[in-house]
Amino acid sequence: MVLAFLILAAVKFGVCAGHYKRLAVCGLATYGQGMSNDVIRLRDKLKQFSDCWSPRVVAELNDYQFKLAHLEGEFVWHAHAHTDEAFLVLAGALQIELRDRVITLEEGDLYVVPAGLEHRPVAPARCSVLLIEPRGVVNTGAAGGKLTAPGDQWI
Amino acid sequence: MVLAFLILAAVKFGVCAGHYKRLAVCGLATYGQGMSNDVIRLRDKLKQFSDCWSPRVVAELNDYQFKLAHLEGEFVWHAHAHTDEAFLVLAGALQIELRDRVITLEEGDLYVVPAGLEHRPVAPARCSVLLIEPRGVVNTGAAGGKLTAPGDQWI
Repeated sequence: MVLAFLILAAVKFGVCAGHYKRLAVCGLATYGQGMSNDVIRLRDKLKQFSDCWSPRVVAELNDYQFKLAHLEGEFVWHAHAHTDEAFLVLAGALQIELRDRVITLEEGDLYVVPAGLEHRPVAPARCSVLLIEPRGVVNTGAAGGKLTAPGDQWI
Repeated sequence: MVLAFLILAAVKFGVCAGHYKRLAVCGLATYGQGMSNDVIRLRDKLKQFSDCWSPRVVAELNDYQFKLAHLEGEFVWHAHAHTDEAFLVLAGALQIELRDRVITLEEGDLYVVPAGLEHRPVAPARCSVLLIEPRGVVNTGAAGGKLTAPGDQWI
């Protein structure tokens, strides 16, 4: 009897979790009514992973995503043909190399890489950033390579 | 001769400034080629204005805008029917009242108000936030009133 109850509870919880996730993914207005998502404490989220160049999604805004990432070393040259990409530095410092100059970002600095512009993020020391871009953007653009991270890794 | 040169220079500068502004507004990919926008130091931008509930645009990401605002006191109940709205607290603390509960945000916290959800920002003490939402969103939604701020106030 107890076992049956536990199985039923587990199944129900799984269904509910899936239901909420679908609503969240769809960004439906009804999602917010009494079960809206919660505060996202960025500094706590940053502690939940440690690997570099592998963005984690923490929130969605319509069809855009907020992603956290730790960066260290040199990334690959790439561009995003169809979208701008925003970097907000949360800790440390980041350089974004363009073909004709270098953008240097410190904590609290925002930079929007225009669509189609080749760029290469370089972090001389480990830093942490918040990325904002449309859902589905691949971190290496069309350049590919071993630093290409899977999309939609939620934390 | 000198006067003619100054007039010509002024006209040319005006044309160029207008040209760059149009490119920036359109968000064209070519905008970035050698004349991309610069680093946006949020803490410096926040010092450029002091009035509350009057967002200033500091950057665009495709058809989305990053806006800074100082908040103090109680805003009006409102909703944005067709879009989510993101709040990232940069300094101080903010409460976002929903009809069934209160979201409390501290510095470094992110919250996305789902589309259609009635909310009322309340800042018991002055705070500063970064808002992210599509271009054209009115701060009071359809509620209107004296706290409705003009849009597209760039700094």
